[in-house]
Amino acid sequence: METAIQQDYFTLLRFQSVGADPAKLRDCVSCAMWLKTWLAELGFEGELLQPEKGFAPPVLFAERKGEAHGRTILFYGHYDVQPPDPVDEWKTPPFEPAIVGDRVYCRGAQDDKGQFFAFLCGLKDYLASDAAKNNAPNIKIVLEGQEESGSGALIQMAPSMRKRLAADVMLVCDTAAASDLQPAIVAGLRGVSHFTIRLDGPSRDLHSGEYGGVAPNPAQAIAGLVASLHDADGAIAVKGFMDGIEPPGDDERALAAQSTPSDEAFAADIGCEPVGGDRRKPIVERLSFMPTIEVNGIHSGYGGAGAKTVIPSSAIAKISMRLVPGQSPQRAFNAVKAHLEEHTPPGMKLTLEDFNAGAGGFRLSVSSPLFRLAGIVLEEMDSRGSVFQWDGASIPVVSILKEVSGASPLIVGWGQAEDRIHSPNESYSFKQFSLARTWAKAILEAL
Amino acid sequence: METAIQQDYFTLLRFQSVGADPAKLRDCVSCAMWLKTWLAELGFEGELLQPEKGFAPPVLFAERKGEAHGRTILFYGHYDVQPPDPVDEWKTPPFEPAIVGDRVYCRGAQDDKGQFFAFLCGLKDYLASDAAKNNAPNIKIVLEGQEESGSGALIQMAPSMRKRLAADVMLVCDTAAASDLQPAIVAGLRGVSHFTIRLDGPSRDLHSGEYGGVAPNPAQAIAGLVASLHDADGAIAVKGFMDGIEPPGDDERALAAQSTPSDEAFAADIGCEPVGGDRRKPIVERLSFMPTIEVNGIHSGYGGAGAKTVIPSSAIAKISMRLVPGQSPQRAFNAVKAHLEEHTPPGMKLTLEDFNAGAGGFRLSVSSPLFRLAGIVLEEMDSRGSVFQWDGASIPVVSILKEVSGASPLIVGWGQAEDRIHSPNESYSFKQFSLARTWAKAILEAL
Repeated sequence: METAIQQDYFTLLRFQSVGADPAKLRDCVSCAMWLKTWLAELGFEGELLQPEKGFAPPVLFAERKGEAHGRTILFYGHYDVQPPDPVDEWKTPPFEPAIVGDRVYCRGAQDDKGQFFAFLCGLKDYLASDAAKNNAPNIKIVLEGQEESGSGALIQMAPSMRKRLAADVMLVCDTAAASDLQPAIVAGLRGVSHFTIRLDGPSRDLHSGEYGGVAPNPAQAIAGLVASLHDADGAIAVKGFMDGIEPPGDDERALAAQSTPSDEAFAADIGCEPVGGDRRKPIVERLSFMPTIEVNGIHSGYGGAGAKTVIPSSAIAKISMRLVPGQSPQRAFNAVKAHLEEHTPPGMKLTLEDFNAGAGGFRLSVSSPLFRLAGIVLEEMDSRGSVFQWDGASIPVVSILKEVSGASPLIVGWGQAEDRIHSPNESYSFKQFSLARTWAKAILEAL
Repeated sequence: METAIQQDYFTLLRFQSVGADPAKLRDCVSCAMWLKTWLAELGFEGELLQPEKGFAPPVLFAERKGEAHGRTILFYGHYDVQPPDPVDEWKTPPFEPAIVGDRVYCRGAQDDKGQFFAFLCGLKDYLASDAAKNNAPNIKIVLEGQEESGSGALIQMAPSMRKRLAADVMLVCDTAAASDLQPAIVAGLRGVSHFTIRLDGPSRDLHSGEYGGVAPNPAQAIAGLVASLHDADGAIAVKGFMDGIEPPGDDERALAAQSTPSDEAFAADIGCEPVGGDRRKPIVERLSFMPTIEVNGIHSGYGGAGAKTVIPSSAIAKISMRLVPGQSPQRAFNAVKAHLEEHTPPGMKLTLEDFNAGAGGFRLSVSSPLFRLAGIVLEEMDSRGSVFQWDGASIPVVSILKEVSGASPLIVGWGQAEDRIHSPNESYSFKQFSLARTWAKAILEAL
């Protein structure tokens, strides 16, 4: 990697752009401004957009008019990153890039700064190439700062930007390749919504001796409430939640199986038995075609050194839902809400806070011309050719951009499990960076 | 209250003697040394004791030889306090005494610094009185620094101190009076044990999209595990836990009912319905004669601003058990341990940490001569006379001191619910302080 590129990459990584944390808003703005300037040098006219309501990490919209004809390509990425905590589990400072062997360690090294920036470097290569001369398409770039927390601002603005976002193809580089970096085309994504459950019981923390057996305990209550969301097999136990789900076709099932690691590979990767979700179903089904209700956090009472014999006054649980085609975020939330209201233990006041609808999931036809062209380009890069993936993860805004822009999504990324995105010591290899960069140049030439 | 007494009281409160927190060890030592000096002025020979194993907040043992005859009185109290958190809910700094109206606000203002120090002031009054002249009994004082976290050091040392602790009567001032400060004699205490449940799942925090439906979720698992400890009625669902419990006599039930607030009074006090414990039983039964398994804290994953769509790698729950006569801490713990092992969800590694056996509970005969004498003294203080209490709380070490010293316990305290012990903004009124002080002088004269 050229020194200049690496310097820019590291500069991008140093912005502490945790979009979910209001305290990091300034870092997000600085990051977006830096990207606007970087793109300006490639001939892009950029603008930082804000939603009408509230003040959020800005959405960078940049456009470069093409020379030849009407083809328009939309590229989407996000410059926000997950919070770094637990910070003390990082071997190096979370926002200072550290090179170890062939890898760069830093929050965002991969998700999504590393992946979208590598793609933009490939775009830069393309624009400098003969292929682009007098023949470059219109290129629109959207880089947002809230992907990790639901893309609130962009989702709010998108409907009013139909004209601006209109495109033929939408490229995204924010997903994983198959094992051993075999190229993968995403044929489906799950949607994601999240919210916070709050239980209030006693008006203050109580002595667990003076009141034990009398006062209801919110820590115990939230445990029971959260536990009620799943049955003994790990299946979702919320009435109506699974209604309307569109089952995959046999071809989709077969292709998904090809790109899904084995149970053993998963066990080795995650360090425990892969027994999440409905254990009566195979992993490929649970990961690619079934929804989840996940507890991202549960907190109540004392957690420090020694003991504190207290009955806490309140408890929270942070919940996210992965949704599949046929489910709407609002309908799914309503089902969970009804379930929680019905199962709230006596003595507790239930409040559901910060519901972020996000977006539903989608699946694309594996036989489209765009996918066939991408398959050819990827086979030129890697003789193994490409596989299709129905990714368990979500890029909520992609479903919305897909609808608003009218573009066909082409989602190809170069992540690997060892990158540990969302965890301490996230990293991305120079090899992966280079693959993403090569892919960007090649597909832009082909389109 | 005389200025000098108030100054000493406030000095005692300013020591941040959180015995459970290793970081506060120095504060505990300073506090014990200050108390040793204060007692020296009353003619006590004091010594700071350390257990053989480890270094803990010291136990202050002080003794004053009596003039007249062989009567020996043992007084027990604890200078350690609960942690102050949640600190931001304090209206005034937790370790800076603040007078508002007739009350002193500070962590430990009541539990137990305020109560035992008021008693020591009464002892000082007694020693200065004619009644004490040439007639004072031997007085032994034990002030420990780990009551809030299980009295580890003192319980470890007590068996080797039989001769030193031997006494006829053991006085304790660490409990509550009945409503409207009507005097109450404690006829029973629950025991307490505590431990930490730890569940480990994935070897790192995981992306809830990439792994949702595949990786087991410790936050969800600990919820299910904790929920399994109680049934739908709130009764303990742990096999063998309730075995051997000695039911109270009808006289005890009747007397306990007299000193137990009504459901309405409890609801007004705690700010929610008093539906803790086995809802099929009356409150007096649940509070005075039944054990509890209480979740003092549950923590896993993200709890900060916004959302973090993660599957956490581990989870903890802090558990305390209140025990009644017929239960042994070790037997109760073994029953819970077996239950937890049996109910640990697939994919999770269970670890039980920091088990502190504490002590069992006890009940005393309400017709003993000591109780009759105390009843007379208290009736002279308050024409309403005294009531008997079977306190839901615990002073683990009292059961052990009772056995080791051979003394009959006389446990009379002056707490009230509004004191909010163990909660932010703990307080104690000058009126309560004065009652504890008067009681000390009066009972020492009578014994």
